[in-house]
This record gives sequence, C-alpha cells and structure tokens, in this order.
Amino acid sequence: MRVTCLSGGVGGAKLARGLQDALAPGELTVIGNVGDDVEVLGMHVSPDLDSVLYALAGLNDEERGWGRAGESWRTLGAAVEWGGAGWFMLGDLDLGLHLVRTEALRDGDRLSAVTARLVEAAGLETRLLPATDDPLRTFVVTEEAGRLAFQEWFVARRHADEVDGIELEGAEAARPAPEVVEAIEGADLLVVAPSNPYVSIGPILGVPAIRDALAGRDARCVAVSPLIGGRAVKGPLDRMLTRMAGGTTPAHLAGRYEGLIDVLVIDRADAPADAHVPLIVTETLMRDRASARALAETVLEAGA
Amino acid sequence: MRVTCLSGGVGGAKLARGLQDALAPGELTVIGNVGDDVEVLGMHVSPDLDSVLYALAGLNDEERGWGRAGESWRTLGAAVEWGGAGWFMLGDLDLGLHLVRTEALRDGDRLSAVTARLVEAAGLETRLLPATDDPLRTFVVTEEAGRLAFQEWFVARRHADEVDGIELEGAEAARPAPEVVEAIEGADLLVVAPSNPYVSIGPILGVPAIRDALAGRDARCVAVSPLIGGRAVKGPLDRMLTRMAGGTTPAHLAGRYEGLIDVLVIDRADAPADAHVPLIVTETLMRDRASARALAETVLEAGA
Repeated sequence: MRVTCLSGGVGGAKLARGLQDALAPGELTVIGNVGDDVEVLGMHVSPDLDSVLYALAGLNDEERGWGRAGESWRTLGAAVEWGGAGWFMLGDLDLGLHLVRTEALRDGDRLSAVTARLVEAAGLETRLLPATDDPLRTFVVTEEAGRLAFQEWFVARRHADEVDGIELEGAEAARPAPEVVEAIEGADLLVVAPSNPYVSIGPILGVPAIRDALAGRDARCVAVSPLIGGRAVKGPLDRMLTRMAGGTTPAHLAGRYEGLIDVLVIDRADAPADAHVPLIVTETLMRDRASARALAETVLEAGA
Repeated sequence: MRVTCLSGGVGGAKLARGLQDALAPGELTVIGNVGDDVEVLGMHVSPDLDSVLYALAGLNDEERGWGRAGESWRTLGAAVEWGGAGWFMLGDLDLGLHLVRTEALRDGDRLSAVTARLVEAAGLETRLLPATDDPLRTFVVTEEAGRLAFQEWFVARRHADEVDGIELEGAEAARPAPEVVEAIEGADLLVVAPSNPYVSIGPILGVPAIRDALAGRDARCVAVSPLIGGRAVKGPLDRMLTRMAGGTTPAHLAGRYEGLIDVLVIDRADAPADAHVPLIVTETLMRDRASARALAETVLEAGA
C-alpha cells in the first residue's frame, strides 16, 4: 500500500511517525512544506522538513514539541556573543544537520537531493520530499505590522499579529520537486496531516502542479483536523480561521480543502458537526507514539 | 609605545597575550596569518586569527593548546552523522564564531572588517589584522603525496609527510589588508612571534607590500625563535628546517628572516650560538600567562 502524506511541522510530523509505524517499510512518502524555510546565521533551515525527519528517525523532543531530544544551545550562545542573531533557536545537534544541508545547497545540490541523503543517513525507508526545490516563501499580511516573512511573524513576533492573508512568494512559478507528482498520482491513499491549512499545507498546495495532481487524484484523500474543540493544539490556527474563514468548526476547516479531500477526521470534542465531506470522529490528540499510531490506523481505515 | 607583532597560531597567540599584558591598552597590533584558512562544512575558518583572538580574550584552552576552553563537539558529531566532514575539529563554541564570520563574508564583508567586529565584541583594545583580505592559501609540496593544501597536510594527514617546499597561492597578487602597512611603518617596535617561519610567518611575508614594509622598517624588529634545543615546541618545524634549511640552530632559523629582523630571542637550550643577527638568550617556553608576559617583557627590552 502506497500512502502519501502532505505535512507541515510538528503535528504532521507526529502523524507521519504514526503512519510509518502502521505501514510496512517503504510504503510511506511524506511531502513537506518549505514555505517557512529561513536563512539564519547563514544556515538554510527547513523547519518543517526537519520536524518530519526528526520524528521519523525518533530523534525529536516529544516534551518540547520541536527540535531534537537532548538538545543544547552552546553554539547559538557563542554566536550571539560574537554579534550573531539569536532570535531563532538553533540547537547544537540541529546545527549539525543545517551545516551539512547548507554546504550541499551552496555546492549546487537541490533541496530534494540533500533531503534524500539525510533520510538515507538516518536509515529510513520512508521517502521525504520537499514540495519544491524552487524558492517558495510564505508571508503573512497583518493589520498591525503589514507584510511579514513567516518566521519573523511566527518566531520573532511569536505570531501575536492577527493575520488577514497569506502570500506565497514564488508559488506560481514553482515546480514540484522530483517524484512529488508521481507520489500523489501513484498513491493508494492520500493524507493531509493535522497541520495549519494556511501556512503549512497551503504552501504545498500553492505549487500549481501539486494542487492539480491532488484535485485530479484517483485515490481517496483523508485529512486530519488539527483542531480539538475548535482550538489549535499548537499555534495560531484557531485565530486565523476565525478571522479569515469566520469560525473554527470542522466545516470551516474542510472549506480550506474544498475539492481536495474526501474525508475529514475530527476529534470527539468537535462532534457532532456537519461539513461538505464525510466526517470520522476519533481521538486526534497525539500524546505519544502509540496514540499517533492509533490515529494513523484510523486514517488508513478511513481511506480503505 | 606602538608594537606590531606578526603572528601565526598557538605560539604566536601566547606571545600576543603576553605583549597585551605587558603593554598599555591599545598599544598592540597583531598581524595574523590567513594562509591556513580553510573551508570546512561550509564554514570559513581562520585558525590562526582565532587562536590569537581567543588568547587575547582569555578564551583559549591552555591545556589542549588550541580552541576554546570548556569546548564541546556536539554539532560536529551530529554533522558527521548526517554525512558531513569530521576531519577538522570544529567545537560548538568555536562554531558560534565561524557562523557569524561566514555569514558576514557571504554578505560581502571583508575578513578584516569582520575580524575588527569580533575583536570589538570581545571587548579588546588590541588590533587584530589579517595579513590580507585577498585569497592567499598555503600549500606544501611533499615527496610522498605531492602538493597538499595546508590543512589537508597539517590536520587530515597530521603533518606526517616531509615537506620539500611551500607554495603560497595568491600571495603575489595579494594586497595587505587595511591598516597593515601603516601598522608596520608606524610601529615603535616590530615583533615576529615564535611561529613557524615557513607556514605561519611565511604567508604573511608572502604579501609583497608587507615584506617590503618590513624590509624598509625604521623600528627594530625582534623575532622570537619557536625552537627549544633545536626542537619545535609544537608542530613539524624542526623537520622542515632540517630538510629545507639544513639544520635547526638559531642561525638556520634566522636565515629564514634575513634582512627582516634585527634581534633573535632564543632559548637557553639553544645557546651558545652564532647567527647573522644579535641573539638574546632567555627562557622562551610559555607555560602560562605569567611566563608569556615575562617573555614579552624580554622582547620589549630587546627592542628598546
């Protein structure tokens, strides 16, 4: 069974791990968001790809919810003392990956090729594909501060500014990375992870050929809602949905994926509800590896 | 009193610290070797400049003899696990500096400008000038392995190969960094630190305008021998001198600086000796900060 999952950062990474656990080796492909990639201290950082990679490899910090377990920040501390930027938390272990990837990109490698080597170095059989190798960057349009680069809004300003719109710079011209369209067209099941539809899944769907491939899918597409009781498990999605879509019910969320999904998996706290797609009600909070696998199994059943 | 010191790595860094201790704030200028600069994991590393900077700032590891005190290597370990190069020991604290410098260089800053900001961030009043901002790289010609980039020979191959010659790529075209010639012409005393004359001081003197400025000096120039009893305190100098100059006496060393120095400070273990310059005999081993300052004071007296 070939399963292809579109994923943002932390929530998507957890489900990806659950799917990997529930499937046979090599059956899972994850297509990751690159809209929030950022250059910090001269490093090319791909936070969402890394969240997925670390989760798939079992290297992620489950308590903190981002980055690597056992992390430390000595290099960043030293960089700040020498006048470097300290607003983005680059851990020592994390930086090991950023150094290798940044060097490869500067040497002319494509992001997808570097990512494939990292996945191989981690000994994984799951495929992890960036949505695109072309420059695609997410900006948010805010009332208070105007247009902000994603990480400036999300990390530096702690997503305090209300968002009126999303701009995906470079999306129209972006081509899917190698294997991405094939992974959608050839899948037996498509999954949209419980990630933010605006700033995590949106930039993946912003690549025209990816959106077209998903819209023309043969397989079923099951989305998992990132909301529990109308609230985001993590991050500003509930505020964004309220402001830009008018509410945080399953229908408001499903509206972000109109024509692209066949089923929406929601949490018990959001039922009963109506939407323009069939709903499956379950426990969606992924507290640990076992609950992530259980959710993954529900998703796989929903797609059967 | 304005003192300008030409310095390589560890031995030069120790004497620079001693001179800084013995002089009033702001009286010392150090001109550092960049011939052994290297690109590792995408980082621009300037080992000799950093050895001097760390020593001047009291951040150096005196026991290990290179790098920072309290160092760890977590980032490098992670980089190696992701497929990165591990042959050059980049510590976590050390990498903080490399990130800041590499980012600045990629943004178009000159090495001298970045170095000045690092010195300022460390709160130092000593000036640290790279010999040149232009590309100048040291290669060694070996019998066994042919022509090797300096760090490949020195670090990766642990300077095991005997050296028949030195090539300074880019030296002929290199211009001195800003303030370098002025620091030589305007000095009240010039010092050549106890560094390797071939691969530490040689690349500084390989910049034609620096060599000319030193040859045309008004002030006295005092060199300190890096040999004790004809042996290098650290590194392969004794083998290089034996093979390329025919011996390791003070005369063989002084011959490397013909016309450029007025006095040579040697260790008691090398006396009595003759050379074509006056010799001053003292204890030259810098075991700690106090002995480095004592040697510096001898150098300052020799220049009076």
